[in-house]
Amino acid sequence: MSGEQTIAEIGEFALIELIASRLRTADSNTVPVGIGDDSAVVRARGNHVVACLDMLSQGVHFRLDWSSANDIGRKAAAANLADIYAMGATPTALLVGLSLPGSTPVNWVLELADGLSAEAEQVNVSVVGGDVVRGEAITISVTALGELEGREPIVRSGAQVGDVVAFAGRLGFAQAGLLMLQRGFRSPRNLVAAHRVPTPPYALAQSGRNAHAMIDVSDGLISDLGHIAKASGVAITIDTSSFEVPEELTATASAFAGDAMEWILTGGEDHAFVATFGNALEVPSGWHIIGHVTDQMAGVYVDGELKSAGGWDHFSH
Amino acid sequence: MSGEQTIAEIGEFALIELIASRLRTADSNTVPVGIGDDSAVVRARGNHVVACLDMLSQGVHFRLDWSSANDIGRKAAAANLADIYAMGATPTALLVGLSLPGSTPVNWVLELADGLSAEAEQVNVSVVGGDVVRGEAITISVTALGELEGREPIVRSGAQVGDVVAFAGRLGFAQAGLLMLQRGFRSPRNLVAAHRVPTPPYALAQSGRNAHAMIDVSDGLISDLGHIAKASGVAITIDTSSFEVPEELTATASAFAGDAMEWILTGGEDHAFVATFGNALEVPSGWHIIGHVTDQMAGVYVDGELKSAGGWDHFSH
Repeated sequence: MSGEQTIAEIGEFALIELIASRLRTADSNTVPVGIGDDSAVVRARGNHVVACLDMLSQGVHFRLDWSSANDIGRKAAAANLADIYAMGATPTALLVGLSLPGSTPVNWVLELADGLSAEAEQVNVSVVGGDVVRGEAITISVTALGELEGREPIVRSGAQVGDVVAFAGRLGFAQAGLLMLQRGFRSPRNLVAAHRVPTPPYALAQSGRNAHAMIDVSDGLISDLGHIAKASGVAITIDTSSFEVPEELTATASAFAGDAMEWILTGGEDHAFVATFGNALEVPSGWHIIGHVTDQMAGVYVDGELKSAGGWDHFSH
Repeated sequence: MSGEQTIAEIGEFALIELIASRLRTADSNTVPVGIGDDSAVVRARGNHVVACLDMLSQGVHFRLDWSSANDIGRKAAAANLADIYAMGATPTALLVGLSLPGSTPVNWVLELADGLSAEAEQVNVSVVGGDVVRGEAITISVTALGELEGREPIVRSGAQVGDVVAFAGRLGFAQAGLLMLQRGFRSPRNLVAAHRVPTPPYALAQSGRNAHAMIDVSDGLISDLGHIAKASGVAITIDTSSFEVPEELTATASAFAGDAMEWILTGGEDHAFVATFGNALEVPSGWHIIGHVTDQMAGVYVDGELKSAGGWDHFSH
């Protein structure tokens, strides 16, 4: 049965054909040339394409005993799609590179493809190309493409003094879920699920296209706001009393002597969106105001205190 | 000195800043938003982008004792740029993902970036974004983007009965060079160099934009012509007597009891271009006619004999 086969047994071409047969078929209007040629051809209305690339490594971004192949595929796609929305763009396609040990079960790879395809379907796009190679550990590379349809991109350097700061989505959930898994627990389920599969609020990012600056929270709120502060040359002041701390976080924090606010401020990988808007009236429904932009020395201030950029550093942690 | 530092010592953000400072600055007309935001914004005239993604794994696509970091960077860029030209497109940008062990010397990574940047400069593009993560082995993922400027893409399915088949570039050199390295030799230098750094004839690909079908030879000539034959539903007949076998290949083949024609027909990774044109007069200068397209049973015929697709399979070899 193919389910027990390894990828070394079936070979590269057969594996690629199997993967391609599992993927959602691309809309030919958006993707005139998809899988099966030297390159894909993807629509980019407005004569510009928005593109980003993320890598995920086994043991660093995912563990095979903590996440299913489907979870890992969804996470890889979500992290990249969030980067497209954070530019104010609409995603059009994904390309995926897989480096896999020859002993990897064929079914594991197909479930990974299912996860990628399912997350892409959330935003009506498909996997349109990529590469599959042999490697010592599993490494996943995802490139997401998007179109601006003539709009200006929303960049990190756009924050202006007087702007209000707001976020959309969940913060701290993925970090709390990771801590639970590290301690050997599989619950609370929604925290663990948040680590396994982030759920970026794509529609809220789209409703926030009037933002002056936007970023998706991958490294941690303080760290990612630090990128906006630095690029814009402004101070960003946030007020912890403005957060409604979710019950799941407070309950888990008190059970494990953790700090829910620290998870919210520094936890990465939730792929919430944080942005600055011209004033409170311009903040769309579903976004939560947490601070404002001032002309103090550039940096991120929490309750008035300057914080150095925290967040996640893949090498030094 | 930073030259002796490892990437674990300096951390992800400092490494990315160092890499960015080494890269060729992108032309702001082609790349309105480059490194340093959630995504890059890249020009795509004609409202379509051409995109491809290749992965290279340590031990499979390169060995650290056979290739310098600069060589590996050039090879990674060249393989992807060739895929953009094979679509009849003009490259606009590269995105690069690196998965690296924490023990990797900072200088090795910077030399890799120099190689990527140097190859990109050959075709007047730059690295505009990417990702750097920790991983067990070195894995490099490159995405190349290109624009069609309103032209139709040149696809694998475009070959027509009656077309002539021609190639541009070198064939068999990378394969012969790899065999020399595998036997412990470092010469002939131009063969070994061809394995380390392919030199796709970008300008010849551009002059061949009147082709009906085109592919870059990454798996091997027979294998890659097989992709055209299958996609177009045609037979491709090539004639070994039409090749001028380069002296370097014949000399090395006779010294090592190898077969120069086999290297030409099945050796991968040279990134030559092979294409079909409407007739011999349409074949541009610098391209070599080696066969023609017929209505026999789809496949690749060499001197009249049907060959099954050969070439390189990353898993089963």
